[in-house]
Amino acid sequence: MAQKKAHIINVGLIGLGTVGTGVARILLSKRRAILQRTGFDFRLKTVCVLHPKKKRRLSLKGVRITSTPTHITRDPDIDQVVELMGGTTHAHRCLTSALSNSKDVISANKALFAEKGLSLYRLSSRMHRLIGLEGSVGGGIPIIKAFKEGLASNRISSFYGILNGTCNLILTEMSQKGKTYVEALKKAQASGFAEKNPRLDVNGADTAHKLAILARLAFHREIPFGRIFYEGISKISDIDVNFSAQMGYTLKLLAIARLEPQMELRVHPVLLRSDHPLASIHGVNNAVLVRGDEVGEVLFVGEGAGERPTASAVVSDMIDIAKARRLGIGPRETIFSKAKVKPVSEVRSRYYLRFQVEDRPGMLGKLARVLGANGISISSVHQIEAPARFVPLIILTHQASEEKVKNAVRLIQRSSLVKQQAVLIRVE
Amino acid sequence: MAQKKAHIINVGLIGLGTVGTGVARILLSKRRAILQRTGFDFRLKTVCVLHPKKKRRLSLKGVRITSTPTHITRDPDIDQVVELMGGTTHAHRCLTSALSNSKDVISANKALFAEKGLSLYRLSSRMHRLIGLEGSVGGGIPIIKAFKEGLASNRISSFYGILNGTCNLILTEMSQKGKTYVEALKKAQASGFAEKNPRLDVNGADTAHKLAILARLAFHREIPFGRIFYEGISKISDIDVNFSAQMGYTLKLLAIARLEPQMELRVHPVLLRSDHPLASIHGVNNAVLVRGDEVGEVLFVGEGAGERPTASAVVSDMIDIAKARRLGIGPRETIFSKAKVKPVSEVRSRYYLRFQVEDRPGMLGKLARVLGANGISISSVHQIEAPARFVPLIILTHQASEEKVKNAVRLIQRSSLVKQQAVLIRVE
Repeated sequence: MAQKKAHIINVGLIGLGTVGTGVARILLSKRRAILQRTGFDFRLKTVCVLHPKKKRRLSLKGVRITSTPTHITRDPDIDQVVELMGGTTHAHRCLTSALSNSKDVISANKALFAEKGLSLYRLSSRMHRLIGLEGSVGGGIPIIKAFKEGLASNRISSFYGILNGTCNLILTEMSQKGKTYVEALKKAQASGFAEKNPRLDVNGADTAHKLAILARLAFHREIPFGRIFYEGISKISDIDVNFSAQMGYTLKLLAIARLEPQMELRVHPVLLRSDHPLASIHGVNNAVLVRGDEVGEVLFVGEGAGERPTASAVVSDMIDIAKARRLGIGPRETIFSKAKVKPVSEVRSRYYLRFQVEDRPGMLGKLARVLGANGISISSVHQIEAPARFVPLIILTHQASEEKVKNAVRLIQRSSLVKQQAVLIRVE
Repeated sequence: MAQKKAHIINVGLIGLGTVGTGVARILLSKRRAILQRTGFDFRLKTVCVLHPKKKRRLSLKGVRITSTPTHITRDPDIDQVVELMGGTTHAHRCLTSALSNSKDVISANKALFAEKGLSLYRLSSRMHRLIGLEGSVGGGIPIIKAFKEGLASNRISSFYGILNGTCNLILTEMSQKGKTYVEALKKAQASGFAEKNPRLDVNGADTAHKLAILARLAFHREIPFGRIFYEGISKISDIDVNFSAQMGYTLKLLAIARLEPQMELRVHPVLLRSDHPLASIHGVNNAVLVRGDEVGEVLFVGEGAGERPTASAVVSDMIDIAKARRLGIGPRETIFSKAKVKPVSEVRSRYYLRFQVEDRPGMLGKLARVLGANGISISSVHQIEAPARFVPLIILTHQASEEKVKNAVRLIQRSSLVKQQAVLIRVE
């Protein structure tokens, strides 16, 4: 919907990294197109960067460059503050200042909002300001909008997400090109997808941050980030990837959110049956599979990272917030009640267990006895032939509680039956 | 965003079929939840049905029942008119009356808006009223919202859609369960998905209606419905489905929209490589694969039909329009310029051709000569053995123009070389 008269929105942008540059580029190059389509004239007034003198690939003629965030957050002319600096401490300070000075804020900072979001939400509510986070999850997929608006008449009962493009690229390279974990990680870094320090990606924390942000919207509860169990992909070996493929499974790092009977929020590698809708999401793609009481299952897929998709999401937030602002209303008043999250130890699931066992008779019987004594029944067993003293032994269990399985694995590891850490992957 | 004060929206609903019942049910059973989440209190004031005395599975206590549409469209209390009666003539009259009486309108009537949308859009613009069509395409997938808002900073260059659940179910049953077309259609009808008269589904018209609605939003042009080429699935045989599977293809009824170099809008069966994202969309699911200049490729998948998904989409429109209404602004003023659509005869593609030829030597040579003389080169040939006088001969061509291929096929059919109509399927 366009208005006859243009409405000017002055924008301050903090951070000019990959996504920040993308946002600046869209605002400068598509200003007219956006004005025509929406009736809002977004003017990039000020950009805050660490090094204002640095040469940049983007021409910022007519834009004020500063290294002082308060030149943006306290500028009475500025309507929207777009925070794309990353990190949590400084970003928290900038956003607090922006909200306190009656700016609407748009951010792609998932770590900040997952871990310290509550104080910012409370402040935004008090100041009657809006927060846009579409850029924080799923790259250009309009998933936050779908949760908030498109599925507004639904009670969302569960969602499952592939939310980290780097991890998905690594697992895809391992399964499709037979790479080892280390080779696949190097490939992801070389192609510019993985960070130089990919720890937050591969250890599952980034996915958990995104899960926290989505779960808040889906379940209308405050999510205590510390209660989200997460586990990454760095222990996954090419043996696991290949062997699960042979059994008809695909290995994915999944964010899992279920509302009932008690809220489950967890991030870990999962064996998915190869005909599962998320099993065919490859490379840097992200995907979210949502189940709503009215809509049934809906799947969203798109590039999960990169300058352009994320910048596209940030700009769509800016447009939405400009519209909402003209409504003259602020954010929802409700402070959500805290979610009670089921401890992962109580989760029941099937398990894939891989042990390194000595290649001699009777080993399986011994392992099976420990599992049986802990109430875990075996669905199938696979021993992989290898000309070595220690060989991989893979056990698929029936449904069992996480606690019992971990307990049994601990007992087995303490014995002299196996070498190395056992690998434990949940089967969905 | 919720307001402190509830804003009352009085709703009139015309039509209480499958989707209408779903909308009424959501409005009555989720009124409080929607109020809490959005700040809008939707009150179902009046329902218009053909037979007001008929017993219904839904209790409509407190709702006025009428068989006179103007009791809704002229009621000064009513804010939103939800048209779910279907058909084009009466529905057009109802919506015209509603808009003329300053109501916002929500409809899932794709035939009406694809074929006669322009007059309604013009009227809505003149009356400063809004039109919501989310329910018309893709069941519960918030695809119209994604086009209008989520991807607002993108130039959409193409999209591909599986937009008819019945056709997709039939093709899935044929490919996965080895059913014939007639068996699969019966199954779809028995399970309540296909209409008793499934003509508009299987002849591609329904998909073309949806394509017209989406293309208008994606390309910001008025789409002349008569220029959309469409072809259905009723000529597809199990031979084609099975044989394409053997060659690594999946057969789908696809809506294709491309902006460049000249706009292409068409609906027809297509052979997709089995690793194509749309090849794995099965059963009653719908899917849209969008390419935007910022976002790259985004895929949306969900149940394409049925009471609940579509009703969910209609209600999300009602909420959005209530919000926009509070903005105090009407629809976009622009009357779109008419799109120039490339004639299908000029489209270039690869082709799958199936002929019924007499099983004697030299037949292939004769067909190949006709194709060659028309500038069509053959990529591969497959003759299927059968204990019959006439056997299927399948030819895959290299890129060729539709006009030349159709011409060659016509010549071949006129000759005495083949029996029955040839089958021609485009390969994407």
